[in-house]
Amino acid sequence: MSLPGGAWDGGPAVGDLGEFGLIARIRERIPPAPAASGVVLGPGDDAALLEVPPGWDLVLTCDIQIEDRHFRRRWMSPREAGARAAAVNLSDVAAMGGVPTAALVSLGLPPALPIAAVDAMCEGIVSELGRHGATLAGGNISASDAIILDVTVAGRVERGRALRRSGARPGDTVLVTGHPGRAAAALATLDAAGDLWERLAASGPAPAPAPELRERFRRHLAAPSPRVAVGRFLAENAVASAAIDQSDGLTGDLAHIAEESGVRILLGRSFLPIDPELAALGPLVGVDPLDWVLGASDDYEMIFTAPAGKVDLALALGTALGIAVTPIGAVVAGPPGVDVLDADGAPIAAREGWDHLGRGRAPEGPPRDGRN
Amino acid sequence: MSLPGGAWDGGPAVGDLGEFGLIARIRERIPPAPAASGVVLGPGDDAALLEVPPGWDLVLTCDIQIEDRHFRRRWMSPREAGARAAAVNLSDVAAMGGVPTAALVSLGLPPALPIAAVDAMCEGIVSELGRHGATLAGGNISASDAIILDVTVAGRVERGRALRRSGARPGDTVLVTGHPGRAAAALATLDAAGDLWERLAASGPAPAPAPELRERFRRHLAAPSPRVAVGRFLAENAVASAAIDQSDGLTGDLAHIAEESGVRILLGRSFLPIDPELAALGPLVGVDPLDWVLGASDDYEMIFTAPAGKVDLALALGTALGIAVTPIGAVVAGPPGVDVLDADGAPIAAREGWDHLGRGRAPEGPPRDGRN
Repeated sequence: MSLPGGAWDGGPAVGDLGEFGLIARIRERIPPAPAASGVVLGPGDDAALLEVPPGWDLVLTCDIQIEDRHFRRRWMSPREAGARAAAVNLSDVAAMGGVPTAALVSLGLPPALPIAAVDAMCEGIVSELGRHGATLAGGNISASDAIILDVTVAGRVERGRALRRSGARPGDTVLVTGHPGRAAAALATLDAAGDLWERLAASGPAPAPAPELRERFRRHLAAPSPRVAVGRFLAENAVASAAIDQSDGLTGDLAHIAEESGVRILLGRSFLPIDPELAALGPLVGVDPLDWVLGASDDYEMIFTAPAGKVDLALALGTALGIAVTPIGAVVAGPPGVDVLDADGAPIAAREGWDHLGRGRAPEGPPRDGRN
Repeated sequence: MSLPGGAWDGGPAVGDLGEFGLIARIRERIPPAPAASGVVLGPGDDAALLEVPPGWDLVLTCDIQIEDRHFRRRWMSPREAGARAAAVNLSDVAAMGGVPTAALVSLGLPPALPIAAVDAMCEGIVSELGRHGATLAGGNISASDAIILDVTVAGRVERGRALRRSGARPGDTVLVTGHPGRAAAALATLDAAGDLWERLAASGPAPAPAPELRERFRRHLAAPSPRVAVGRFLAENAVASAAIDQSDGLTGDLAHIAEESGVRILLGRSFLPIDPELAALGPLVGVDPLDWVLGASDDYEMIFTAPAGKVDLALALGTALGIAVTPIGAVVAGPPGVDVLDADGAPIAAREGWDHLGRGRAPEGPPRDGRN
């Protein structure tokens, strides 16, 4: 399949350039830090320096991407790998309601990796950060067998406004942006032959030709959009009582909110937003689309709870940003956990979130990360 | 050789516990954050929250440690691996003159790794951070083939007081703490038979029995002491015009100061502090001890420059802290670079710093990191 954003092969390798040559090359490609980022000192010293304005707290998160664990060269371009490594961290800052400002990256690079691929990875990191007002402020490079991109993103949030996992209360409504499950469906179909996409184009709601359909699915996995604007709206307007970004899967991530808030969460099966293309694809590959929607899938959508008086504002946000925002359930008192209920109110067993260290995972299993 | 701090083998493995079980286990082992760390929200959410007091800037750095690139299980205990991963980052905060406050860690763990080894690694991280007033505020865990510890350390420094690489000026004195080269010597002798240590005990200045000598050398590599107190003294008293921590090697690191400051640095061969044990060991293994002192070695000593009026204060610092502080050279005008001069003023060719991506490195070559 064609991967926009550069190739993994060809040209001189990073081992020929050497570490400090490579660092100098990367530094040249970083645009000046935007003033609003608060970066006082960027790359080129022992550490970066950032200004955090009075009245704001620093938001800090890190998440690692390892080749063949979290992505494969076969289905992700170097530029996408870089952008995605930034995006999954920007998503965590978004889930706190923060403004992303600066990032560091630890790069592990096989010495035989082409310099052009590293250029493209760094362009991906820098451009994804830049889309959200943040800048690359430092990092380090090591040789390694597999490609490693470990990005730390810093941001800021008004003191007391951060969206925590622990604030959900009985009576709150549970909402989600976008269409969770797309990434899982994309992963499940990465090796699918062209005829699957032709059958989907024929049977499904999508008007696109087969190659475009296939590429659209691949990008659900390879190019997530962190919901930074959503997080900022929720924080600035005190809309959300709790929030988390969807990186383990809808029920798995909601289980974290349930645990940290000490509440039970009920999801209505009929309320769940199911992407029409997923609904059409499921039967073609023998999968219940609901498994994708509820189970392990890292779409980096925003999952949040809102008190009754704020739900209208949350829905208006979706309209304003052109993003689907769907009420999918309710917070109730009870032992921490998540139940999915069918139309009759009968519980469908809640699925567990992805366990990244579990030994039972399939070799091609969905690459997921967990936070502590 | 005996490795204090736990074993790499035995007992249940992390793959049996699972990711979230492991995260819960680690969280239980983190003591409450000290109030001075400014940690508003620690592990358990999408990101950590830190307060940075008005008038201070945030210091932020990250550095990755990869098994068999930066350490080997054969010569480092799990506890030491954790402590060292924290220490190399604390060292970067020290080199900025900062107060370390909080850390995140990305852990890459082979599923077969014993839980006890992860416990010990985390104890190492937490205790090393705690020694310097900092706390573990978050992170993430992934499965990986090799053990990966990528630590991000945050700290704070009074605005305008940070020690940068770019401030060295002609006329400044170059100083270094401790005895650079010990880590390189330790690495070179890790596989040495017991008789080497007996010969060193017989010929050298050390009174210790051979096994203790051997262990002392191993710890030069496995258990560096970040110079946090030194960095704070230099920043608070405006002693240093420039600083860097010694992670690539004395000449390699000074080359960074020379480049960023636009100056030339002259080192006097006879001024260099040579550990008497290194001086005795060199001839026994056919190495010029000067190669260890000047070349690639990550001892995490502090290298800094001070204007003439501040040198006495820098030397008093050493006395106060019980750490050797040695003037080793001078900053002059000239093209950026480092020259080592013998007693007659004749230049000995400056050695390059370690290039971590260079293909020519020996398989057992010193594991080094570079910063950008």
